[in-house]
Amino acid sequence: MNDNPIGEAVTEAEVEKTLESDCDCKDGMFPQGKIGTASRRAFLRSGGLLTAAAAIVPVKALAQDASGEAPWSVPGRIAKSDYGSRAPFEKVARLASFGGTSSLTPLQASTGIITPSGLHFERHHNGIPAIDPAQHRLIIHGMVDKPMKYSVEDLKRFPSTSRILFVECSGNSNAASRSASQKTAQEAHGLTSTSEWTGVKLSTLLAQVGIKDGAAWVLAEGSDGAMLSRSVPIDKMLDDAMVAYAQNGEAIRPENGYPMRLILPGWEGNINVKWLRRLKIGDKPFMTREETSKYTDLITLTGKARQFSWVMEAKSLITFPSGDMRLPGKGFYEITGLAWSGRAPIERVEVTTDGGKTWALASLQEPVLPKAHVRFRFPWHWDGSEAIIESRATDQTGYVQPTKSFLTAKEGVGPTYHYNGIQSWKVATDGSVSNVLNA
Amino acid sequence: MNDNPIGEAVTEAEVEKTLESDCDCKDGMFPQGKIGTASRRAFLRSGGLLTAAAAIVPVKALAQDASGEAPWSVPGRIAKSDYGSRAPFEKVARLASFGGTSSLTPLQASTGIITPSGLHFERHHNGIPAIDPAQHRLIIHGMVDKPMKYSVEDLKRFPSTSRILFVECSGNSNAASRSASQKTAQEAHGLTSTSEWTGVKLSTLLAQVGIKDGAAWVLAEGSDGAMLSRSVPIDKMLDDAMVAYAQNGEAIRPENGYPMRLILPGWEGNINVKWLRRLKIGDKPFMTREETSKYTDLITLTGKARQFSWVMEAKSLITFPSGDMRLPGKGFYEITGLAWSGRAPIERVEVTTDGGKTWALASLQEPVLPKAHVRFRFPWHWDGSEAIIESRATDQTGYVQPTKSFLTAKEGVGPTYHYNGIQSWKVATDGSVSNVLNA
Repeated sequence: MNDNPIGEAVTEAEVEKTLESDCDCKDGMFPQGKIGTASRRAFLRSGGLLTAAAAIVPVKALAQDASGEAPWSVPGRIAKSDYGSRAPFEKVARLASFGGTSSLTPLQASTGIITPSGLHFERHHNGIPAIDPAQHRLIIHGMVDKPMKYSVEDLKRFPSTSRILFVECSGNSNAASRSASQKTAQEAHGLTSTSEWTGVKLSTLLAQVGIKDGAAWVLAEGSDGAMLSRSVPIDKMLDDAMVAYAQNGEAIRPENGYPMRLILPGWEGNINVKWLRRLKIGDKPFMTREETSKYTDLITLTGKARQFSWVMEAKSLITFPSGDMRLPGKGFYEITGLAWSGRAPIERVEVTTDGGKTWALASLQEPVLPKAHVRFRFPWHWDGSEAIIESRATDQTGYVQPTKSFLTAKEGVGPTYHYNGIQSWKVATDGSVSNVLNA
Repeated sequence: MNDNPIGEAVTEAEVEKTLESDCDCKDGMFPQGKIGTASRRAFLRSGGLLTAAAAIVPVKALAQDASGEAPWSVPGRIAKSDYGSRAPFEKVARLASFGGTSSLTPLQASTGIITPSGLHFERHHNGIPAIDPAQHRLIIHGMVDKPMKYSVEDLKRFPSTSRILFVECSGNSNAASRSASQKTAQEAHGLTSTSEWTGVKLSTLLAQVGIKDGAAWVLAEGSDGAMLSRSVPIDKMLDDAMVAYAQNGEAIRPENGYPMRLILPGWEGNINVKWLRRLKIGDKPFMTREETSKYTDLITLTGKARQFSWVMEAKSLITFPSGDMRLPGKGFYEITGLAWSGRAPIERVEVTTDGGKTWALASLQEPVLPKAHVRFRFPWHWDGSEAIIESRATDQTGYVQPTKSFLTAKEGVGPTYHYNGIQSWKVATDGSVSNVLNA
């Protein structure tokens, strides 16, 4: 049934040669407490107790062994560290875009739902500031009873909250709305990532300063060179907004707002203001550059622009197999990807392998968390013929991720922001996978 | 009510001086699309477009500004990168222990439930091997129909699963069972961490090789210099075991088993064999060194040792405030910490601030995941008098985390492994926090 079986058959004779001769368990029992010959051999090879302090040796040496044995027992050669690094063999990386003002997450290499902080997408408007947390303050003022300022240490004294949440740039997938020229999932959709964020709820901070009657909007301003500023309705602030100081269990990374960042779950990345220095409470929106000349959605059919379109609607993406990969042959593959919605929890994800003629339910990895990436999986036996594979997310409001042609008809081709159309990958008969435009 | 209020009051006049004069929003409205004077100033200070490629400048310079202004608007000075690093100001680190053969997670600095991979605890028995994933194979043989070997790429072709899980060394908290000499949460209990692990379920692999009648145990063997080996009952393998190849969304870190590791949810760290090279199916335990002379639990009252005591029972720990910290004064503090159980999901965590005379329920951060760290929180108004604070976890089997004295009476002082007694911290009248022995 499986035309391209996974793995390679071995014989017990081969195992005897490569493994059993290398340990003390030939008879299925280990002499209790004995340090066997192989252990001693490995110990000597590794330089004994000096190993722990040794630096990494050239990679080439590792696959070889003077004795001619298979390199099964590998001496310790990576130095222990107080803050670890990934293996020197790993090369997965962010990809610079927008002239170096953003970096894309390698979604095609993603597993599970957490994005490693080192691979979280970034977007900056005037560089990444190096902010000394001891100097930094958050000021809350305007229509409040008691204007206050807070250090990072102050924020950590308030009741805290942690949430696993996606952040997505509203410009993510922009080019994908018009063409299939971007080869990989990373190039086409890499401006979204998921982290566990920890901080203090805005409702806690606003309770302390006291909001005056008539307060309706909050100016959020960053301390980066661009002083990026956005207006946030106070209802969102009192709902689920937080000022985060931690990401994936440690301080927020510099490119993601160190030492503090506004987190507005489910809303476009730009308004999750990084390097946050103040919140000014007012009675009307502040009409900053980033919500007037930028980050509005031009509807080309009408020539008008939507303003304050914050929520990232339901979207999904197959990350494996995806563009620029090559399947080694027909047989079993697990189609997997990510789905998310800033509106409501993901209700279901469907997958098609025939370009949308038929759809079937994918399984969702628990826990399915609101406003976070959700990992979906779908078993597939590829018969070797050309296939168009797509995923389609539906959230608990009933909203269904639209096709590109639907968005085109509704909004005109080329909305710059908030593009969430279905992504199509073509698997060619030679197993190569490419980005294509489908209905 | 709050004797030590959080933050500092400011006046609108001060805000005017430090913030409003630095931007274009004095009248509460931004001129649309205009780049203001401050933005231009910041742009010039930052070296304009050259910023993105600039290296990090000395930290001292960042808090100063030639104009004498508060350093609110901070030019971009951290280089963008394809794989990010943490802020140069952050110094939280693992701590070497056991003569450099292990490193402890800084639990006192933890937030949320995810441990950053760079701070995940580690324990190695003969150094950290640098394994080329292209050379590495997992062999499954013994009482099977088809002995097989698999590369990392092979494993990635199987149906995958992701779970957020704690791993805890069975020797964690060992010294804490006998004394209070270890100052911090890290020193006393740092051999536990939580990651999102992704891999293939053992049940999937065992279905492919086919298990022969009578198969009951599996030898799991690492390819490190120590060739660490353990026997695992096949029921556990068929239940929720996996061979993981990813940790927190990227390849497993070298010190945690790169390129593949056995994950046995809820079971002692040692048996979650790292650098996994083979699984040999047999009909009895293999009686390896690590389950005969080591990793058995001596009960000093009887002089006998428990063998095959794999499950890590319910345990919890207050991480803030914890040993070697100092509270700045009486007032509000959020007591927070971690709870976990390898047996069943955490049902509740209780906190005492009077050394166990009275207990109250802590709140648990959602999602409460089985066999993962759970973050608990408890609001506390410290009145400035001496206080003993403790936490106590209960899992869904009804098992309640025991006191030290209970464990002492039941097992004799000094079980080397599986110590899960209640941890006590004393808050002295000067706010200093220390590790103490309580009932």
